[in-house]
Amino acid sequence: MSRETRATSAPQGTPSTRDLWAIVPAGGSGTRLWPLSRASRPKFLLPLLGERSLLQQTIDRLAPSVPPDRTLVVCGPAHAAPVARQLPDLPEGNVVVEPSPRGSGPAIALATALIARRDPTAIVGSFAADHEVTDLPIFDAALRTAVAAADDGWLVTIGLTPTRPETGYGYIERTDDVVACTPEGSSYRAARFVEKPDAATADEYVTSGRFLWNASMFVWQAQALLDEVARLQPELHAGVSRIAQVWGTPQQERVAAEVWSHLAESTIDQGVLEQAQRIAVVPARFGWSDVGDWNNLGELIARDVDGNSVRGDLVQANTRNSVVWSETGRLVALVGLENIAVVDTEDALLVVNRGDAQEVRQIVEQLKTMRRHGF
Amino acid sequence: MSRETRATSAPQGTPSTRDLWAIVPAGGSGTRLWPLSRASRPKFLLPLLGERSLLQQTIDRLAPSVPPDRTLVVCGPAHAAPVARQLPDLPEGNVVVEPSPRGSGPAIALATALIARRDPTAIVGSFAADHEVTDLPIFDAALRTAVAAADDGWLVTIGLTPTRPETGYGYIERTDDVVACTPEGSSYRAARFVEKPDAATADEYVTSGRFLWNASMFVWQAQALLDEVARLQPELHAGVSRIAQVWGTPQQERVAAEVWSHLAESTIDQGVLEQAQRIAVVPARFGWSDVGDWNNLGELIARDVDGNSVRGDLVQANTRNSVVWSETGRLVALVGLENIAVVDTEDALLVVNRGDAQEVRQIVEQLKTMRRHGF
Repeated sequence: MSRETRATSAPQGTPSTRDLWAIVPAGGSGTRLWPLSRASRPKFLLPLLGERSLLQQTIDRLAPSVPPDRTLVVCGPAHAAPVARQLPDLPEGNVVVEPSPRGSGPAIALATALIARRDPTAIVGSFAADHEVTDLPIFDAALRTAVAAADDGWLVTIGLTPTRPETGYGYIERTDDVVACTPEGSSYRAARFVEKPDAATADEYVTSGRFLWNASMFVWQAQALLDEVARLQPELHAGVSRIAQVWGTPQQERVAAEVWSHLAESTIDQGVLEQAQRIAVVPARFGWSDVGDWNNLGELIARDVDGNSVRGDLVQANTRNSVVWSETGRLVALVGLENIAVVDTEDALLVVNRGDAQEVRQIVEQLKTMRRHGF
Repeated sequence: MSRETRATSAPQGTPSTRDLWAIVPAGGSGTRLWPLSRASRPKFLLPLLGERSLLQQTIDRLAPSVPPDRTLVVCGPAHAAPVARQLPDLPEGNVVVEPSPRGSGPAIALATALIARRDPTAIVGSFAADHEVTDLPIFDAALRTAVAAADDGWLVTIGLTPTRPETGYGYIERTDDVVACTPEGSSYRAARFVEKPDAATADEYVTSGRFLWNASMFVWQAQALLDEVARLQPELHAGVSRIAQVWGTPQQERVAAEVWSHLAESTIDQGVLEQAQRIAVVPARFGWSDVGDWNNLGELIARDVDGNSVRGDLVQANTRNSVVWSETGRLVALVGLENIAVVDTEDALLVVNRGDAQEVRQIVEQLKTMRRHGF
């Protein structure tokens, strides 16, 4: 089925996503969720919100729109085996192992090139492996709305209407130009991408009604993205094209390693989207979190009458709005505390003020400096 | 050597304490130092401040004045074995096992009766098993000063000049009447004992210069104490006299159990001293602490440049004036915290605001209510 006919002949259910492909870049270790997340067990492999890992939940969430054979997970060599085991329905060839981490730009460009080779007219969505979405019907509606704009050649982002002046997220400013619409929503031409703002700026953004959280959710025609990569990052385009050509042949590993070793690091946002033409954004209001740190994670876990979010065996006195995450089964006793998170693992214990949750990365950096590997 | 000649013929060194006996009541579990202290490993058995336990340090501190054969430790049945092992120089007969806890009144009265039977003219000092003293020469001087007043028939307490308006301690008010003095200090007639005051009252006490911390350090003639017990608590006097009579005979255990089962609980302070005649107090300024809670203990451990007191493997960011005590060897990471204590043991983890350190007892009470034995 071609893109041209999709809009009119789409069946009921998820009409416009019938032939959608998905890329799930599974990179990063989730430093701010240390000591639960480690280099060897990154955040996306952890069952932080339920029985299934964030990666599994991402794939589950896409399942109504994208079957496993059209889903590619991009990960590092160390995580290929756990990814394959966590996603038994994913064809082996759909676990794309990049030789080393080069950021989301090369990861997504490579996967897009591989998809374009299999389906030159493919529409592709890219979704982070370690985020949380709570309202699936709205997510699905936003996805269909994005596909409609992508169908018209736009590089589409799905942006979240901000619910607080968050300084930890990037923002996308939209214009008032509607570039495509469906009965379920509209895509607007995007004005610009902004990195994490300060508190005052974030406040303005929320009030303006024109800024959306950048949730790293993208939808586009594979060819449209590759064309922009060719224009803006010709070396990257040449590299992923060369790898895609030999993918599945005996040269795959040698060529991939060779190309990757010369690639510059880049993100898809900075390397392509911020400079690309015809960028659109679909504003949406499904519950979303990047599950970025212990403060965040605490907000996603059910709270008890004292506002405490508890995964473990807690006995407390005068303790409120705190987070307990224990992997050891030990008794955790808290007295006279507010707004702290306690993370108890076999070899390391973290206690952090929730307001300083981002600073957990300082601990990971110190441990690296001290060459205390294994943490 | 009789008391009458002691003051004049005392040899150099510790002249007036040459024949002093010592009682060390080793009761209580140190609830506020949970989870380190437990019913099965009470505070006095723990090496909280150095290599040796608080009990061992208490005995070490007395050693210049009181040899092991004149030192009696009173403890419960569950702790007789660890006490005996921690104090190998103590004659077996000097580990006095009370059948069950009845407070410091019965414990001290019994030990005093046993001493009086062995030395009717004995002067006896009583010292808590789980306190900290840092300035030993001043402690020794206070002890000799107290012995001089006890020699004159006074029931003498050693009181600490308060260094802060502590609400967690009891106080002793002194009069201006000097009842005995040595070149090293004076004993004053005591006016009254006061239980833990509120903050405003504690403030007044410190300012007045007439109030001293009650450190549970007592010195008296065995007979003088027993006379007051007979007057104020005749049943207790009859009970301990009966036990002392059969001590060391086959009837000892049966009689002790029988007497103890009918004894009312009482403290030596409330049962005897608060109502006794001829109570004196020696004001002294040696460093002293009851090592009562985690805030307290933190103050007794050396602090690093950030004011943190650490027994363990700490990595931190922006953390000040906090206490880390780890028994497990695990890495403890603290981020953005101030004035908290973290206590890490094999089966339980405590995080407490230092200002609420007294409330750790609430946790122990909750665990008891929940019948979670073993904690």
